[in-house]
Amino acid sequence: MAKMESIVKYDSKPVLRDPVLIEALPGIGNVGKIAGDFIAESLKPTKFASIFSMNFPPQVTPDQDCVVHMACNELWYAKAPNGQDIVFLRGDYQGGTPEGQFILAQDVMEIMMSYGVSKVITLGGYGTGQMTDEPHVYGALSRKELREGLEELGVVFNPGEPQAGIVGAAGLLIGMSQINGIDGFCLMGETSGFFEDHKSAMAVVKVLAKIFGMEDSIDLKELQDKSQKIDELTEQVKAVNSEKPKLNELGYIG
Amino acid sequence: MAKMESIVKYDSKPVLRDPVLIEALPGIGNVGKIAGDFIAESLKPTKFASIFSMNFPPQVTPDQDCVVHMACNELWYAKAPNGQDIVFLRGDYQGGTPEGQFILAQDVMEIMMSYGVSKVITLGGYGTGQMTDEPHVYGALSRKELREGLEELGVVFNPGEPQAGIVGAAGLLIGMSQINGIDGFCLMGETSGFFEDHKSAMAVVKVLAKIFGMEDSIDLKELQDKSQKIDELTEQVKAVNSEKPKLNELGYIG
Amino acid sequence: MAKMESIVKYDSKPVLRDPVLIEALPGIGNVGKIAGDFIAESLKPTKFASIFSMNFPPQVTPDQDCVVHMACNELWYAKAPNGQDIVFLRGDYQGGTPEGQFILAQDVMEIMMSYGVSKVITLGGYGTGQMTDEPHVYGALSRKELREGLEELGVVFNPGEPQAGIVGAAGLLIGMSQINGIDGFCLMGETSGFFEDHKSAMAVVKVLAKIFGMEDSIDLKELQDKSQKIDELTEQVKAVNSEKPKLNELGYIG
Amino acid sequence: MAKMESIVKYDSKPVLRDPVLIEALPGIGNVGKIAGDFIAESLKPTKFASIFSMNFPPQVTPDQDCVVHMACNELWYAKAPNGQDIVFLRGDYQGGTPEGQFILAQDVMEIMMSYGVSKVITLGGYGTGQMTDEPHVYGALSRKELREGLEELGVVFNPGEPQAGIVGAAGLLIGMSQINGIDGFCLMGETSGFFEDHKSAMAVVKVLAKIFGMEDSIDLKELQDKSQKIDELTEQVKAVNSEKPKLNELGYIG
Repeated sequence: MAKMESIVKYDSKPVLRDPVLIEALPGIGNVGKIAGDFIAESLKPTKFASIFSMNFPPQVTPDQDCVVHMACNELWYAKAPNGQDIVFLRGDYQGGTPEGQFILAQDVMEIMMSYGVSKVITLGGYGTGQMTDEPHVYGALSRKELREGLEELGVVFNPGEPQAGIVGAAGLLIGMSQINGIDGFCLMGETSGFFEDHKSAMAVVKVLAKIFGMEDSIDLKELQDKSQKIDELTEQVKAVNSEKPKLNELGYIG
Repeated sequence: MAKMESIVKYDSKPVLRDPVLIEALPGIGNVGKIAGDFIAESLKPTKFASIFSMNFPPQVTPDQDCVVHMACNELWYAKAPNGQDIVFLRGDYQGGTPEGQFILAQDVMEIMMSYGVSKVITLGGYGTGQMTDEPHVYGALSRKELREGLEELGVVFNPGEPQAGIVGAAGLLIGMSQINGIDGFCLMGETSGFFEDHKSAMAVVKVLAKIFGMEDSIDLKELQDKSQKIDELTEQVKAVNSEKPKLNELGYIG
Repeated sequence: MAKMESIVKYDSKPVLRDPVLIEALPGIGNVGKIAGDFIAESLKPTKFASIFSMNFPPQVTPDQDCVVHMACNELWYAKAPNGQDIVFLRGDYQGGTPEGQFILAQDVMEIMMSYGVSKVITLGGYGTGQMTDEPHVYGALSRKELREGLEELGVVFNPGEPQAGIVGAAGLLIGMSQINGIDGFCLMGETSGFFEDHKSAMAVVKVLAKIFGMEDSIDLKELQDKSQKIDELTEQVKAVNSEKPKLNELGYIG
Repeated sequence: MAKMESIVKYDSKPVLRDPVLIEALPGIGNVGKIAGDFIAESLKPTKFASIFSMNFPPQVTPDQDCVVHMACNELWYAKAPNGQDIVFLRGDYQGGTPEGQFILAQDVMEIMMSYGVSKVITLGGYGTGQMTDEPHVYGALSRKELREGLEELGVVFNPGEPQAGIVGAAGLLIGMSQINGIDGFCLMGETSGFFEDHKSAMAVVKVLAKIFGMEDSIDLKELQDKSQKIDELTEQVKAVNSEKPKLNELGYIG
């Protein structure tokens, strides 16, 4: 029997006009998933397709009704206040191997190109290993002409960063849109990467809200509450660190 | 040369009417395999197909005649007392990788759909890490409407459990039946998971016997004998544990 | 680009009549390779095909002329004194993964079936972890009717052995011949498995020589010389062991 | 969806006459990449194709403009002073698995054969684990007749070396050219393998310069400067080693 890497199951085939793809899968600090799911839910989206794949864990997860859900990625669509059709790539998993990640990105691009995708926006975390008060949103681009517009929205461009590259769906989908001559960029919320970072996600959400004319309509309260807890945590860490004498203050002679 | 993941070899192509698939492969406490093989043997089944695959260990095993058997999964059919045609998925192996498990589940679904499969029942263990006197049989469903009928048979539904998901064939086959609009459920016998758990398997067998009108015809003696040994073991473990002073009774000061 | 698992390159396409395949690849104690290569060389064989594969190590090896040789398996043909056409499967590698071993066995079976293969004989070692004076040759069969003829040649049949199965090409090729209704058996020379075991290989060679009417024509001197060194080694090991007091002679009280 | 191992994206399809392929990918001491990139840049080459693959790391890397580049191998063409068309295989990655390396080599051979490739030259390091004053350039061949011409250019042939084989693209592309009846050889610069070895690369560059009539046109200054630093390092290592008393001079009694 022939090998089928993925099974795409459609609930419906919506008519979409020049849709933008927003990738919101798990990653560093879960920034991309939190931000993308938040924007999606704000727009009351509709799921229209599920991608099942041998590249996800071979399992199902029961919900509160004991109904199982097979590991998958999902495509949801919604219309932004500015009239833009958006497709969200959502889920709890990325491909489990390098090969699997490449194949899944190919699958998604193929579906989106059949919908005439006009732009690809991927979301992720920019891990620094350090707590920060005001997380930046860093950008990476499929072509340099996209930079100016994003800088006007507050996105920061750090030459050659992240040096280690952008790994997984957030990177591959921009790479593949570039190959196919489609505009794309990645928005990365600065994060320690130590926990689910709602504050960093909120920074990304604000950029997206500007892009899609959602600034007046979204309610950031939930993210603000969670961000506040992160602020408190940050203060505590700082306090502890400032109490701790530094190594050279200890008069230690080796 | 092209890649062939699996080779399906048919001994015969039986005529089956709306067959139910029962998956009985190895897993936690081997509960699913023991229960499924027991029900199958009670019905004097006939093997009709073998699935050989690059996703099983690359080996053959000699039998008592020194005749080799290649690692495989097998399909057996039988008719239940209530007239229901049943196909059993049996074997000593599951796929060796996540990709392999997905492909094998696809292969099985493809074959069963060609037979017009009407329902998929997968069997497994529900590992708790604890000895129990009266193992429950837990359920998970392809759709919530199936719940009531199973509860009447004594199946217990624990919202969102098992939290870690249902891994391997027992999960994937329910997931894939769900995708294909076929009813399916998983029966999981509660088990410590520490040994081959015939007692847990007997609990699963009793549920299946009710479903297929086998309550009067099956002879549980073999399972009962083996369950009794497990009971004795459980008692011993309990006795040892009650003799053992608890940590806080030791007056230990760290 | 599509995935090509293997590249088969033919030097020639010989006309063969009901050929027997003899598998002689590396394995336990290298018994199968030593025995098969020895029989092959005794028959002055001709290489006619090479199988290159992504399942072998990704490398070439330079020879004494600094000409490179890509990792491969080779097919050689020869005619036995009794008129039997034989194809030898030779090489320095087996597939590097379970999947790769399965695919390579499929490739070989496909080629051999195009030649109307009449029988498959695989060679291997039967690892015991112990030195032995007179290594047996154990057998495993595609069907039990083949047993009597082999017992007459001195092959020993140990019910259910080797318990761990016959792994790799020696197992899979018998399994696949069985699936395809072709007679096959595996000859396993008893070996400690600790070193290249020419003595065990010689035992296998003697069985093959009887099968193909080569008893008068082969010169076993080379194998005998190497076997004698193994005998000397065995004697030394025995001497050391007999000098060493056994644990219970030490009067050790635990 | 079907599995696509690689995506080949052409910037242009140049007309090339009997081109020579020079492989210049990363490897031991990075000798092949440094030498090949140096020769390529000396000839002011043009990139005409990129090979993206599931066998590279699943990531993009941002450049100084924050424009992303997906992990890939590239094909560049240039004309040598002697009129020879050359295609360079360049990049920062080799395939991440044995299977991936095989597939990528197949992809490259397929493309190059469509261009009527006349010769394949692969570049690599010959790791010795020792510092050396005058690194040799060792050769390995697709057929022995190629040896004499290379010896005249100073290439050294060490029978059966490297014993461990030539691994990765440098080996596989020669192996595959051999299979396809195309002349090929590998030039390996002797190197400790401990660092990026510009000195060893320069030795390889000098051989290539002779082959392509570039001796008068290339400027080796950059390589010479970097080589000098390696010379200084080598001297320091030697000085330290000569100061260190040898073990047998220590009068150590165990």
